[in-house]
Amino acid sequence: MRAIVKPAPGPGLEMIDAPVPDPRAGDVLLEVKATSICGTDLHIRNWDPWAQVHVRAPLIVGHEMCGVVVGHGDGVTDPPLGTLVSVESHVVCGTCAWCRTGKGHLCPETRILGVHRDGVFAEYVTVPAVNAWPDPPDMPLSVASLQENFGNAVHTVSVPDVDGRKVLVTGCGPVGVMAVAAARALGARSVYATDVVPFRLAMASTMGADATFDASRVDVAEAVLAATDGEGVDVLLEMSGAPAAIDEGLRVLKPGGEAALLGLTSQPISFDIDDRVIFKGATIHGIVGRRLWDTWYRMRALLRSGKVDLEPMVTHRLRLDDFALAFDLMESGATGKVVMFPDPADADGPLYRP
Amino acid sequence: MRAIVKPAPGPGLEMIDAPVPDPRAGDVLLEVKATSICGTDLHIRNWDPWAQVHVRAPLIVGHEMCGVVVGHGDGVTDPPLGTLVSVESHVVCGTCAWCRTGKGHLCPETRILGVHRDGVFAEYVTVPAVNAWPDPPDMPLSVASLQENFGNAVHTVSVPDVDGRKVLVTGCGPVGVMAVAAARALGARSVYATDVVPFRLAMASTMGADATFDASRVDVAEAVLAATDGEGVDVLLEMSGAPAAIDEGLRVLKPGGEAALLGLTSQPISFDIDDRVIFKGATIHGIVGRRLWDTWYRMRALLRSGKVDLEPMVTHRLRLDDFALAFDLMESGATGKVVMFPDPADADGPLYRP
Amino acid sequence: MRAIVKPAPGPGLEMIDAPVPDPRAGDVLLEVKATSICGTDLHIRNWDPWAQVHVRAPLIVGHEMCGVVVGHGDGVTDPPLGTLVSVESHVVCGTCAWCRTGKGHLCPETRILGVHRDGVFAEYVTVPAVNAWPDPPDMPLSVASLQENFGNAVHTVSVPDVDGRKVLVTGCGPVGVMAVAAARALGARSVYATDVVPFRLAMASTMGADATFDASRVDVAEAVLAATDGEGVDVLLEMSGAPAAIDEGLRVLKPGGEAALLGLTSQPISFDIDDRVIFKGATIHGIVGRRLWDTWYRMRALLRSGKVDLEPMVTHRLRLDDFALAFDLMESGATGKVVMFPDPADADGPLYRP
Amino acid sequence: MRAIVKPAPGPGLEMIDAPVPDPRAGDVLLEVKATSICGTDLHIRNWDPWAQVHVRAPLIVGHEMCGVVVGHGDGVTDPPLGTLVSVESHVVCGTCAWCRTGKGHLCPETRILGVHRDGVFAEYVTVPAVNAWPDPPDMPLSVASLQENFGNAVHTVSVPDVDGRKVLVTGCGPVGVMAVAAARALGARSVYATDVVPFRLAMASTMGADATFDASRVDVAEAVLAATDGEGVDVLLEMSGAPAAIDEGLRVLKPGGEAALLGLTSQPISFDIDDRVIFKGATIHGIVGRRLWDTWYRMRALLRSGKVDLEPMVTHRLRLDDFALAFDLMESGATGKVVMFPDPADADGPLYRP
Repeated sequence: MRAIVKPAPGPGLEMIDAPVPDPRAGDVLLEVKATSICGTDLHIRNWDPWAQVHVRAPLIVGHEMCGVVVGHGDGVTDPPLGTLVSVESHVVCGTCAWCRTGKGHLCPETRILGVHRDGVFAEYVTVPAVNAWPDPPDMPLSVASLQENFGNAVHTVSVPDVDGRKVLVTGCGPVGVMAVAAARALGARSVYATDVVPFRLAMASTMGADATFDASRVDVAEAVLAATDGEGVDVLLEMSGAPAAIDEGLRVLKPGGEAALLGLTSQPISFDIDDRVIFKGATIHGIVGRRLWDTWYRMRALLRSGKVDLEPMVTHRLRLDDFALAFDLMESGATGKVVMFPDPADADGPLYRP
Repeated sequence: MRAIVKPAPGPGLEMIDAPVPDPRAGDVLLEVKATSICGTDLHIRNWDPWAQVHVRAPLIVGHEMCGVVVGHGDGVTDPPLGTLVSVESHVVCGTCAWCRTGKGHLCPETRILGVHRDGVFAEYVTVPAVNAWPDPPDMPLSVASLQENFGNAVHTVSVPDVDGRKVLVTGCGPVGVMAVAAARALGARSVYATDVVPFRLAMASTMGADATFDASRVDVAEAVLAATDGEGVDVLLEMSGAPAAIDEGLRVLKPGGEAALLGLTSQPISFDIDDRVIFKGATIHGIVGRRLWDTWYRMRALLRSGKVDLEPMVTHRLRLDDFALAFDLMESGATGKVVMFPDPADADGPLYRP
Repeated sequence: MRAIVKPAPGPGLEMIDAPVPDPRAGDVLLEVKATSICGTDLHIRNWDPWAQVHVRAPLIVGHEMCGVVVGHGDGVTDPPLGTLVSVESHVVCGTCAWCRTGKGHLCPETRILGVHRDGVFAEYVTVPAVNAWPDPPDMPLSVASLQENFGNAVHTVSVPDVDGRKVLVTGCGPVGVMAVAAARALGARSVYATDVVPFRLAMASTMGADATFDASRVDVAEAVLAATDGEGVDVLLEMSGAPAAIDEGLRVLKPGGEAALLGLTSQPISFDIDDRVIFKGATIHGIVGRRLWDTWYRMRALLRSGKVDLEPMVTHRLRLDDFALAFDLMESGATGKVVMFPDPADADGPLYRP
Repeated sequence: MRAIVKPAPGPGLEMIDAPVPDPRAGDVLLEVKATSICGTDLHIRNWDPWAQVHVRAPLIVGHEMCGVVVGHGDGVTDPPLGTLVSVESHVVCGTCAWCRTGKGHLCPETRILGVHRDGVFAEYVTVPAVNAWPDPPDMPLSVASLQENFGNAVHTVSVPDVDGRKVLVTGCGPVGVMAVAAARALGARSVYATDVVPFRLAMASTMGADATFDASRVDVAEAVLAATDGEGVDVLLEMSGAPAAIDEGLRVLKPGGEAALLGLTSQPISFDIDDRVIFKGATIHGIVGRRLWDTWYRMRALLRSGKVDLEPMVTHRLRLDDFALAFDLMESGATGKVVMFPDPADADGPLYRP
């Protein structure tokens, strides 16, 4: 089968011909129908310091996908053959204290597809049956592929209480934009969004932001205070990892407010704990992955009810064979999600033509 | 009346003869029976940068006390004359969004006794009637004086879930030591404590710590991991404000753990948000003051049930007239709480003799 | 001034000429601009067993209103004269353990306007200043009058977690219908509603119900199971007080579900605790009044953001002088809210003509 | 092997010679070391209406036990052979929405040992490996056997917030008595207990109740109010299923209080929802089983820290061969837990001699 691999330590990816994997006991074999690119995949292509530490080459990369069940390992009968599924990319142990108490997203034994074991930028992949989440058969394939990433957004939004609250989303990459939509659908009074890329701010508006601020042009703290009658916001959803965004976001957080932090800073930052956290009586939530499986049930609710429509998030569709171009587009910052199709006949919209 | 004042900007305090204040509408006049020294009082005496910004001299200082109601302002009938009361030192507006929703400890209009308005190191003081918390008539006066400070500990312990959990207290000043006792009483499985002063570590043991670690002599993270079978702790109660304590405390916090931060760092610190908060899915709670009035009800429960006995916390009793010595003792670090009595006949234990 | 009173124990109400009240210390004097009828007012007119126990005649009745501040009692400066305000009808003590801990809605000393003290079906009324909730000056008067009643709905919806959940509202009187709208706005996946009056079911649909069921015609449990793929609902909002509705509502509640009960049964009912609560691991919340003041802030968020529009709830506007007709309309069951105006020039829509 | 069975529908049990079972894939084979009798076992022996509906004879009965791992089914390596384990008696599916979200105790596919599949009153039993909870090798066998039942108590206590609260436990069978101990250890301010059997009330005192009331001799509501200065309690833990206990317990519950209901009433009861739940703003929690696996971790914390000592709960030790006598003792009501040993040499205390 065709598969995109990191062949050896160092920058770059290539497409190779690889054997179709066999599902082991407890696994399903999936035929990949659509697969989308995540920021993590860019780190892996570019072989940045994080990738150098975490990725063991050679490896098939990629972790966002939907597909169809085409094989069962020993002991597996569910989901049945032919089912359209999205994939949870975090493979957890199932037996540790976290897995046993509804906190599997914190399992210390987590293995991630496309990082620690072979991933989904391929024609086929095997995953534990429990990681294959059944979708309605009529769900658009590109939306089905996005669920894993949408789950980061839904998890982030679900931890603080957004009901009737004013919410600030700092960072409008795809997860930030999807967080805007989820916050709105889940009862936020108003949602403000910041970024430094006009394309991304426009996406945030499309997906429901009440106002957006370009942090390269305006003083975000001033703008948020002006938009909120000087009050600030009740909830901060930090998706950028930018030290200035964290600092300004916490600065305009009201006393007693809640912040959920998903964006990684990649290095220690200078942080004023007294003024930003303690005197405010603020609560800061670190967010990682998706709650297994609460987040998936919440996603199901948001998508099936139509409260969130992810289709506008898909700005580019390409053949898997054109992965190099797909990665370049994603890296430009001027995209929503970039979805690739191993079989172009599966594309649920026009293919991108450069 | 005798009163200890900051007479003008600059270091030092002095005792003066001041008029007995009149209670205004809504206020009670209290005769001070016992009053204890807080770290904040040391900052004010020493006129450190924080004090320079927040304190307006001339001012009567001090904010921890108990006393007896001896006068009522207009419209006040409660607590009745003659009632022994402890005092909540944070005077809040009662009408803002925080005061109206059970979060009065976050009121932006908070005025603190001995910081923003005349305090309690005096023979008499006026406070809003609502700030006078009735005590049982047989409560030892020194314990009654300690409640305001104990409230910081109880608030800190009450925010995370300590039931059946392993708890680390970093910083064993009086609030830290009282947090050890409160955590134990409220159901913690085990309580570990750190400091760099042997006297304080001994106090922590007396008040119920399962193990204490001298951070100047051992690697705290290693010691905590050894004490917990390599697991780390579920809850961190950070009372020191020391950057190393924050960093090590969060390092040994388990994934999904909770940290409550009360100690002030006084300046921005370098902070690894990725590893200490996000990848862990940790929750960080900033703690300020006491919840009005949940914390006072919890204190009442702990003290009246005998689940916490604060008497061992009182290591030094002095006349108010000997305030200079009392402050020097407190500053030494080798004390529990230092309690002063305007009338030495009220002392509920032997007076300290140098 | 004109005022509608219960002149003596027994059925009936009459309009009298009463003196304009003087605001006491802490009170404001309000000129009533709009006032709406609640089910409780019907009980009082009809002098049912509940009214016989709780109401002391003679008394001015009514408790839902908006008006303008036209006088201040001693010590009051806020809200300023001329402010449009809605009124919280529960006057609480402010000093008990409940009032002191954000649970003032449970104050044992609660006195209700129009039940325990003179009410709002009049040209003027005095209330504690804290009970006068400022509205935007351009809020329609009928909507401003509805807030107190809308608060019952918002409180009920806010206690269980409705985010992404399937919700059943049993009982579509005005509070039930407003609960439909609030649940939808606050993130429910789907909202089902039951009643036995077609007019009310139509109102529920107008305000956002996904499906409505006439309990006099269909088996509600079957219908709900059919609408939810046999799963049942996550949340029950019980607004009817009808034993069958409670039983069927809890029957279709999923294991682990939450029920919030607002409707009063008026007498003990036969209740299967084992099957309806214990084996399900269900949580049942009793709901009374509005959380002081969380619920008012949530209402503000819902109304100012436009997430809930209460205007369709106002089906009838009348002169206060026509109160007898207004009560008859309300009693018919075929209305939304019936709003009365002391000065018909204030009506924000056409007056009802029989 | 020897095994105690319900041979056919109808009252009675008998000991038979049965084959040692083979562990299937995912199972472990356990050698039973100690096994204790639950109220449910009495229902099964007596063949009451509940048993007639739920139990399919022939069946090996019993569900509380500890034992040693002596065999592994396919794919199982953990817990290792030779490990002392306690057993969770609820076998759940692992894949439903409840199992996937930390609510496995509500799994609709739950199969209970000794009720739906062969139980533990035997020399050997097979259970899923995940249901075998490793114990410290030096845990007394009778305490290890009690954990499953202790878990009901810990679950009940853990759902409401007992920190610093006044708690009433109605019903002092073994689970009620263990709830007294757990509530105390987890931070309750005071614990009151009721029953009608003096032996049980004495057990409650032994395990830490502050006061006990014999409901056959005193008015419990009056007694509780007298003990609480007329306030009532914050938390009710209902373990009796007696309608009068439920009614009186909720009557003395404070406004805003929480009740956790574990005791089954076995039939619908007359219930005053208005006064007992709604006007109080009370929260009622139905409790079933043990939270999988939060409750087991909490138990571990309570037992290993010594905060709860279950040894006094074990009042009678017998040979498994003497099961008829053991059941008669349990039925008398004048016991704590009755523990049986397949091999009397394993008894961790003197065997009972009639």
